[in-house]
Amino acid sequence: MPTPNIEFAGALLDALREASRDEPGVTRDAYGAGEETAHAIVREAAERLGLSITRDPAGNLFMTLPGKNPDRPAWIVGSHLDSVPHGGNFDGAAGVVAGLAAISTAIKAGREPSRPVTVLAIRAEESTWFPASYIGSRAAFGKLDAEALDLPRADTGRTLRQHMLDLKLNPESVRRGEASIRPETVKGYVEIHIEQGPTLELEDIPIGLVTGISGSFRYRTGRCLGAYGHSGAVPRRHRQDAVMALADLAMKLDRFWEENEQPETPLTITFGQVATDPSQHAFSKVPGEVNFCLDVRSTSTSLVEKTHEAMLVFAKDIEERRGVRFEWGPRSGSTPAPMDADLVQRLEDIASTKLALRTLRMPSGAGHDAAVFAANGVPSAMIFVRNQNGSHNPDEAMRLADLETAIALLTELLVAEDDN
Amino acid sequence: MPTPNIEFAGALLDALREASRDEPGVTRDAYGAGEETAHAIVREAAERLGLSITRDPAGNLFMTLPGKNPDRPAWIVGSHLDSVPHGGNFDGAAGVVAGLAAISTAIKAGREPSRPVTVLAIRAEESTWFPASYIGSRAAFGKLDAEALDLPRADTGRTLRQHMLDLKLNPESVRRGEASIRPETVKGYVEIHIEQGPTLELEDIPIGLVTGISGSFRYRTGRCLGAYGHSGAVPRRHRQDAVMALADLAMKLDRFWEENEQPETPLTITFGQVATDPSQHAFSKVPGEVNFCLDVRSTSTSLVEKTHEAMLVFAKDIEERRGVRFEWGPRSGSTPAPMDADLVQRLEDIASTKLALRTLRMPSGAGHDAAVFAANGVPSAMIFVRNQNGSHNPDEAMRLADLETAIALLTELLVAEDDN
Repeated sequence: MPTPNIEFAGALLDALREASRDEPGVTRDAYGAGEETAHAIVREAAERLGLSITRDPAGNLFMTLPGKNPDRPAWIVGSHLDSVPHGGNFDGAAGVVAGLAAISTAIKAGREPSRPVTVLAIRAEESTWFPASYIGSRAAFGKLDAEALDLPRADTGRTLRQHMLDLKLNPESVRRGEASIRPETVKGYVEIHIEQGPTLELEDIPIGLVTGISGSFRYRTGRCLGAYGHSGAVPRRHRQDAVMALADLAMKLDRFWEENEQPETPLTITFGQVATDPSQHAFSKVPGEVNFCLDVRSTSTSLVEKTHEAMLVFAKDIEERRGVRFEWGPRSGSTPAPMDADLVQRLEDIASTKLALRTLRMPSGAGHDAAVFAANGVPSAMIFVRNQNGSHNPDEAMRLADLETAIALLTELLVAEDDN
Repeated sequence: MPTPNIEFAGALLDALREASRDEPGVTRDAYGAGEETAHAIVREAAERLGLSITRDPAGNLFMTLPGKNPDRPAWIVGSHLDSVPHGGNFDGAAGVVAGLAAISTAIKAGREPSRPVTVLAIRAEESTWFPASYIGSRAAFGKLDAEALDLPRADTGRTLRQHMLDLKLNPESVRRGEASIRPETVKGYVEIHIEQGPTLELEDIPIGLVTGISGSFRYRTGRCLGAYGHSGAVPRRHRQDAVMALADLAMKLDRFWEENEQPETPLTITFGQVATDPSQHAFSKVPGEVNFCLDVRSTSTSLVEKTHEAMLVFAKDIEERRGVRFEWGPRSGSTPAPMDADLVQRLEDIASTKLALRTLRMPSGAGHDAAVFAANGVPSAMIFVRNQNGSHNPDEAMRLADLETAIALLTELLVAEDDN
């Protein structure tokens, strides 16, 4: 088997980190300077590899090695290049770098793939910037809702359309639903990504193969409204304390979580942001309002819905007992996406036969662009690389040796003699 | 009995509201423009009544009617003129206005008091501005800790000393502990204040007589520290979720509160401010940190301490179960202060015999300058006026007719023929 070009991957990851450093961690803002710089760095590396390069109307970057039979359905390998604010260097970028490294490995070994291989750098996967998921990949399939172009970016307040125009992209084409990927021209999609939880590390296995991606429901602008009052003078029975009410909801959901998740259908429940109102709150006031974000995920559609129903029942009870009112704001989210069983099996077989590697089948609690490919009929798979410090944080980690293993697995898939 | 000069009180309250309007509500910042303007308005009203006026080194305003025997121990009546940000117009100011109105009433009725009556406008009672309670009254007794002068104001970040110097006051005298009130020269202190809870309104009684003022413990800079992680990818058992941990603590304290307070020893527990870290939090991250303020009050010293002990036990359990760490920061607070039983009885007798008024004896869950007078050996009492909408909020309310009743009661005390 070819020796993976891990020096190439390491150097490219270092260059990305340097260019997007924002202590603590890195920031690559979607459709902003951070993501744009990352695209430029990756593009330059692809040019050095001699790949043919195009950019679609939404700014996704296609870097293609034609292979022996340029007209056959292509492999697409890749991931996204944006990050959360003060995130880690690997979430997203590692998948794009690994795709280029696999091509570099194949070229160095003189093992030309039988079909085209496109490394895809996808835009705006993280939903912290615009309140929508998978913007880049949905746009590539011509499936981004037109209204998404009017969504404001959380930090700038400017719309996705304005940000696209800043980069000389073509939001009008996106609005018309013009696809840059036609599913029938794609053999399959493979995304290498760091695992964003601790499971592989705890199981001491370097590589996971994803069986399915969680769906979710989300409330980004939830509010609990009570009544302000003097912290010392309003008796307990007369309080309308928004913070106590939200704590009550959180603990009821935490109990539900503990009682309802199963090993095969994991659940996550997260209040990632909470804040009383700085213009009204005070140390000596009963809080009359608290704002919150709620994110609930599971690979089981029915568990997602069951959690939502339970939440509404809990909230109604709390409203009656505590004299508060929950305002949820818009619900967003996604449906669970199963990975392609044949492709997962193929990766598992290559790992065991060619690399003598034990892999772990596992669900992905986090969302990924692979969910969009699967939803559009492209056989999809994900290779997880173990990670010592979670993700969406500045301390995420990955051993290069583990990435090297993932690149080896991907390369073997792309150059397989029996590919058909 | 003299007819209370309620027109005087209403006009003065209106003037204060207009001058400190800051929608929603009013803002009279301690040792800032808001409080200073209120002092100027009150001083002008006192000058019109012909009172003799002095200002002490801490900026407390003494407005005195000498009475028939200027050398006898004086009544001090008054309250504070600062407010919380976006607070109501009556919290504090009503007590100063009522004192002046009582003097006006006595003068109009030709009922000169037998001893001096000083209306005192006190500085900086609210602890939202500087992280300390009763600054003005403690300074008046020469008992403000020297370190308090170095405390920063929450909004400006500038120290109490700097704010005093801005107003040409004398922080050096305050630091030396030079008292402007000597307890042996004071007959008693009476503070009229709106009730800051709903009890009088619910009991349909216009006037309350306070039996004692709650003590407290407070943590203004509490933090719960966990670990950031991906909201979808970290399983429940591996999470270190700071928001869930704080919710757990809040619910355990809420249960403790329900089970441990008694009618004669009320308790309040308030997390008035909570916030995840805007520079690190994200909708799709497990929150690794949440900041909070905690305020616990009771008229029972032992219940305050029992609550504190319970809190530490709860926190330790949560730290172990949830992988988080609580950092409490400095503890502040106060000890409970009983009102003078004879003075309370005297007010109750006057109310029933002279005004045919039923009053309610009640504890004060909120702190007041009266606690400082009591702690310094001055026989003290508080007259609560019922209030339709709590306090420390823009909607606090008070019927002028109820204030009129309180002024009548105070006037009768001040002009009593049998005063000795």
